Amino acid sequence: MLTQPILEGNRLALSRLLTQVENDSPEGRDALAELFPHTGKAHLIGVTGAPGTGKSSLVNQLTLHYRKEKNKKVAIIAVDPSSPFTGGAVLGDRVRMRDLSGDDGVFIRSMATRGSVGGLAQKTAAFVQVFDAAGYEIIIIETVGAGQSEVDIARLAHTTIVVEAPGLGDDIQAIKAGILEIADVLVVNKADRPGVENTERALRSTLELAHPTKRVVHHHGRMMKVDVTPSRSPERSEGAAKGLAHQAGDSSPSSTVQNDKDIWIPPIIKTISTEGIGIPELAKAIEEHKFHLHQSGDWSARDRARLRSELDAVLQEALMSRFLTGAHRDEYEEALEKVIRRDMSPYEAARILLNGKMK
Amino acid sequence: MLTQPILEGNRLALSRLLTQVENDSPEGRDALAELFPHTGKAHLIGVTGAPGTGKSSLVNQLTLHYRKEKNKKVAIIAVDPSSPFTGGAVLGDRVRMRDLSGDDGVFIRSMATRGSVGGLAQKTAAFVQVFDAAGYEIIIIETVGAGQSEVDIARLAHTTIVVEAPGLGDDIQAIKAGILEIADVLVVNKADRPGVENTERALRSTLELAHPTKRVVHHHGRMMKVDVTPSRSPERSEGAAKGLAHQAGDSSPSSTVQNDKDIWIPPIIKTISTEGIGIPELAKAIEEHKFHLHQSGDWSARDRARLRSELDAVLQEALMSRFLTGAHRDEYEEALEKVIRRDMSPYEAARILLNGKMK
Repeated sequence: MLTQPILEGNRLALSRLLTQVENDSPEGRDALAELFPHTGKAHLIGVTGAPGTGKSSLVNQLTLHYRKEKNKKVAIIAVDPSSPFTGGAVLGDRVRMRDLSGDDGVFIRSMATRGSVGGLAQKTAAFVQVFDAAGYEIIIIETVGAGQSEVDIARLAHTTIVVEAPGLGDDIQAIKAGILEIADVLVVNKADRPGVENTERALRSTLELAHPTKRVVHHHGRMMKVDVTPSRSPERSEGAAKGLAHQAGDSSPSSTVQNDKDIWIPPIIKTISTEGIGIPELAKAIEEHKFHLHQSGDWSARDRARLRSELDAVLQEALMSRFLTGAHRDEYEEALEKVIRRDMSPYEAARILLNGKMK
Repeated sequence: MLTQPILEGNRLALSRLLTQVENDSPEGRDALAELFPHTGKAHLIGVTGAPGTGKSSLVNQLTLHYRKEKNKKVAIIAVDPSSPFTGGAVLGDRVRMRDLSGDDGVFIRSMATRGSVGGLAQKTAAFVQVFDAAGYEIIIIETVGAGQSEVDIARLAHTTIVVEAPGLGDDIQAIKAGILEIADVLVVNKADRPGVENTERALRSTLELAHPTKRVVHHHGRMMKVDVTPSRSPERSEGAAKGLAHQAGDSSPSSTVQNDKDIWIPPIIKTISTEGIGIPELAKAIEEHKFHLHQSGDWSARDRARLRSELDAVLQEALMSRFLTGAHRDEYEEALEKVIRRDMSPYEAARILLNGKMK
């Protein structure tokens, strides 16, 4: 078995495999298939937030905490928008090395955001599998920004932490709203800065806006809580439905919205990451969320959703490449020319290509 | 023809169609097919940048300029990360309405970033087609942030404007590097703020890092410039190759790197958008870029790249849905269960599904 050194914790082999996976080499694919049965143990933690919130230093401090207090192996995947020519990713790693270097229980890997989004989320997922199989118990996926790609990557995680900081400009507010939906734990970092109360208050009121959507409704003659927040994906609905089914079979006669194991209200944790303040509290909130996930059945629902979207991505890519390598290549190019000449729309072209009635 | 009112400039019909397109309704698809032959005339301008740079007010001022000075019809597509429950998109529109309301030559439409990224870029592309067919000569696609999704949406545009502002926190630097690659025009907005010289200097040095990659090499016994900047997509390489072929046939005996029509060094424009300062200069830079695109052949190369990726997206989706609606649905669910039990990896599952050897 080629991947034995990975399973035994060989860092050089691990590093080499990550490069193969990043380059989508056949060796990388084979290794992933071999390693896959060894995955499914790690706690995947997503950390996201706008630039200037101090995410990286928060991730470093959290990692130090997991190392010193819990003796857990930690992998960090930094999804970095810096482009290769600036060496941004490398520089970022070097800065981190000061705190975390020489510790064999920590592995840091940056990933440039070059390439397609689908590809990025797919590669992040593959990295996660490698670290998971290699025995890293905590895998932190750090993303910069608050765009849709961050949301997609956050979907990979069991627990998503959204980091905010006081005084980051005027249209930050809008970002919060979008990103709040994916937050399991909220952090107000740089809590020694002026305006921290405002930031916390704004977060709290947005949370209140978000959570009245957890309504109490009657169903099958029995009181149930239904999460009517639009779910992040069909898979999430599946997860929610699963949770509800579980609850329906629950024998406990009454439960309040606050105490319901199926409902998680994201806590707000204040930190000063440069000084390590608030880090144990953050780790505790993450632990509580993990417990909640297991209790509610959401842990396996998220696992399932993640693997389904991975399978879909691979399958979609394979279908397209099979379609184009067949006799369809010429038809495809012909259809494209017609689209470019505005003789037909992309939709028509796709329909004709699939029905084989070109011309 | 159902879309006649759109072509005649009926705003209510336009608004209704955009909703149909957003919901991906059959009527919307039919209308898109009808409208498609009328597209290909608009100048698509992408505007992106981090939160707090004042993008929206810049877009408003630029729109006013196009209305007052050039008498051009302008459509704005605001890709907004605000979630539906906060009403962020609606609020944003209302603020804009103060400046631009009552002008029939302006149409503003927000689009929430909910849903998949692929879907988002696809829907933005469909919106662009509708506005293009409806006779909007300038279509501005505004995105918040600097993630991969913004890059994907920027790919739709002929001219991409990246907006920066002084003093936006410490890890802004990293974002600049990634996003600079997609910039055709750079704007330093809020140029009355302290630190504007630093921001401009940082941009200039990053640009210099990026542009030595335009090297002069010998090819076929003739001096040519080759753009060795990693291209954004295979299509861009195609475009570059096209540009070079064109140049090789050019009879002008000598040209410097600066004056070469195939090379565009992004200009840096300083603006104070709240006061309209720098807006005419920005409009001029955009016009020059348009001229460059036509001269170099990049206009049609970008058009081609955009339509190819639209066709690919539609085709990929259709292939997947055809695959799953066939007899493959059960096999797919069976394969997914095996993946979830870690009996096989997503890659193996996809391979087996495609080869039809699932037990």
